[in-house]
Amino acid sequence: MPETFRVGLLGHGTVGSAFATLLRERADAIVPITGLRPELAGILTRSRGDFEEILANSDLVVEVMGGVEPARDYVLRAMRAGKHVVSANKQLLSQHGEELWACARENEVQLRFEAAVAGVVPVIRVLQESLAAAHLERIHGIVNGTTNYILTEMARGGLSYADALAQAQELGYAESDPTDDVTGRDAAAKMAILARLAFDTPVHLDQVRYEGIEHITADDIAYAQQFGLGLKLIGTAELVDGGLSVRVHPAFLYRGHPLASVEGPFNAVTVESPAITEITMSGPGAGGPQTASAVLGDVISAMIPPATTPETSQALEIVADVESAFYLHMEVADRPGVLAQVAELLGMQGASIKSVVQQGLGHDARLVMILHPLPESRFYAAVHLIGQLDFMRSSPRAIRVIEEEFI
Amino acid sequence: MPETFRVGLLGHGTVGSAFATLLRERADAIVPITGLRPELAGILTRSRGDFEEILANSDLVVEVMGGVEPARDYVLRAMRAGKHVVSANKQLLSQHGEELWACARENEVQLRFEAAVAGVVPVIRVLQESLAAAHLERIHGIVNGTTNYILTEMARGGLSYADALAQAQELGYAESDPTDDVTGRDAAAKMAILARLAFDTPVHLDQVRYEGIEHITADDIAYAQQFGLGLKLIGTAELVDGGLSVRVHPAFLYRGHPLASVEGPFNAVTVESPAITEITMSGPGAGGPQTASAVLGDVISAMIPPATTPETSQALEIVADVESAFYLHMEVADRPGVLAQVAELLGMQGASIKSVVQQGLGHDARLVMILHPLPESRFYAAVHLIGQLDFMRSSPRAIRVIEEEFI
Repeated sequence: MPETFRVGLLGHGTVGSAFATLLRERADAIVPITGLRPELAGILTRSRGDFEEILANSDLVVEVMGGVEPARDYVLRAMRAGKHVVSANKQLLSQHGEELWACARENEVQLRFEAAVAGVVPVIRVLQESLAAAHLERIHGIVNGTTNYILTEMARGGLSYADALAQAQELGYAESDPTDDVTGRDAAAKMAILARLAFDTPVHLDQVRYEGIEHITADDIAYAQQFGLGLKLIGTAELVDGGLSVRVHPAFLYRGHPLASVEGPFNAVTVESPAITEITMSGPGAGGPQTASAVLGDVISAMIPPATTPETSQALEIVADVESAFYLHMEVADRPGVLAQVAELLGMQGASIKSVVQQGLGHDARLVMILHPLPESRFYAAVHLIGQLDFMRSSPRAIRVIEEEFI
Repeated sequence: MPETFRVGLLGHGTVGSAFATLLRERADAIVPITGLRPELAGILTRSRGDFEEILANSDLVVEVMGGVEPARDYVLRAMRAGKHVVSANKQLLSQHGEELWACARENEVQLRFEAAVAGVVPVIRVLQESLAAAHLERIHGIVNGTTNYILTEMARGGLSYADALAQAQELGYAESDPTDDVTGRDAAAKMAILARLAFDTPVHLDQVRYEGIEHITADDIAYAQQFGLGLKLIGTAELVDGGLSVRVHPAFLYRGHPLASVEGPFNAVTVESPAITEITMSGPGAGGPQTASAVLGDVISAMIPPATTPETSQALEIVADVESAFYLHMEVADRPGVLAQVAELLGMQGASIKSVVQQGLGHDARLVMILHPLPESRFYAAVHLIGQLDFMRSSPRAIRVIEEEFI
């Protein structure tokens, strides 16, 4: 039996309850990685639980209450008691970060907070570890999913700001009081945290200038599209003349910018430096399971020494034949029945045609089609037979197509 | 004086020499993070240096020689001597990974290898730490910059494969013998490593099926563009019917796919899971300074306990006024001299117009322009004056524009 690693949970809202579920589901998978079995030592909600009792029974405390007090008090007390803390609380860290990080250093405990910025996108870890000693010049981020969703809908459907906001609220992407999101204050808190880590300088939320998206019109977005520009709420932290600028405002991006293609409720962060050029990371910025997943990553990191590559605990069969969609390109004689014969051979192998273009070339024709996914072995069996038809001018050419999975 | 942390360097090619330079440049910045000052303990090249001597003088060994032997022998001996190892060697890890990881576990040392896959894109760390206990379903990756550069040029300029390859060789994106890259073998080695970490199953390079891009024509790419498809060399590792498929082949992607916009020599990896939806990371896949930067990130991680947030060592001034490009939208009376007066006020503040569109609306007109970057304070001074002109029908509307930095 592996030893138990006890996790105290402060807060049981969307993230807290998703974390409790995820910890239970993944406990078995965590044993081979850490040698320990994590389990919940207790949950503190507004109406239930006793902080002192949970603290005494925990090896690590997860704080997902939100807000500054009593979260600050609990986090400080946990660290002073020698416990590691994992927090998802951007308000707390952007206003009291220096006090909390100093307390962690004094008590030689870990304070991890990946989930506080950009949800499951691992930007904190990358800044603190991969890029710890890199000389960075700038960070650009889409760090608020609510506003990115609203702007995406305004651009796609020509919705007004009010209509897009109402739609976001209906779908759960915006809260009933969306002030913190739409004014840019939520993004400002996250940029304060990122700027502090990237530029080795204390940054308080109050030092971040921010503007929101409440005054953006669908017209602005439509006109700017003519210039090849798309609108995002962008957080920026950059070195300027030996100082640091940290700000959040709506901004147009050219289509080639790595953040231009980030749509819907996704978050993304681009880090720029002369040595590395740029790294961009993107993914879902919020949502209970996603944020809980980021919290769990931090908990596991606190459980183990880093960079161990554990022994594999399974040996899955390596599969050869898989399903794939295909592009199929054929040069054929232009005569009746060609498409029918090709289609018949494909149909016999279960291949179904998604799109087809036939193009006349004098006596010959070019037939290009996209097929729905089918087992590769069946597809190549069909191609082999098609290649032997007497009207083929050259060997058929096949390339796989990856279908869209999300959005 | 901080204590010294001694780094032995095996290999002094492009990556090795970039690493030696970077370590020297960043040594001062590393002290506040780790409490230690890293310095080179010795360099082993084909003609210089003695391995045993370097080993005896090192706290950690960096292996950037490439190839299987003698790299394998050196890495094993270093770990058996109780030294941490940082390696950028994909051939070695994709063929002898299990032996090496077992040796690291037995000797309780770290074996880090971020630079072996996708250069500075921190995919190894994210898989091993952030997503350690996530249940992953699939990884898609563009993990070879040479082939992505060639395919990008074929798509952009209609170049033939041979011409695009020659151009890549001229610019240093392809080696004089490009076989490993263009056949997909290099990408296969990287996918073996990623699949091993993501799916907790031993994967050897020989188990990865791969196809290259040598037979792709510019025609294929052009036809598929009609269907909204772009071609990439894609590595895939995914669960299929309880087994694992690991493969590399050219594949078309729809425009919305997160890897579709990855161009030139960049690398990118998308990780999919039901809990997290998907995370995408992208950045430069190779190049001496970039790869050296990934190696240095690993070295620093081996020097310190994780997730410490060091005290800030500076306090940069937080800057308020920065330069920005702007979109400016004005509703004006349609009469002569309007554009001239607006342009004059802008010019007095040093604002320069990049593009302008004027649109008649009966008696009124709409004037939309994009301005080159200027200090925000000067821009808003001009906008204030423009707003007072008697022909303005409503307040001018201004939104910032982020200019493209790269590519």
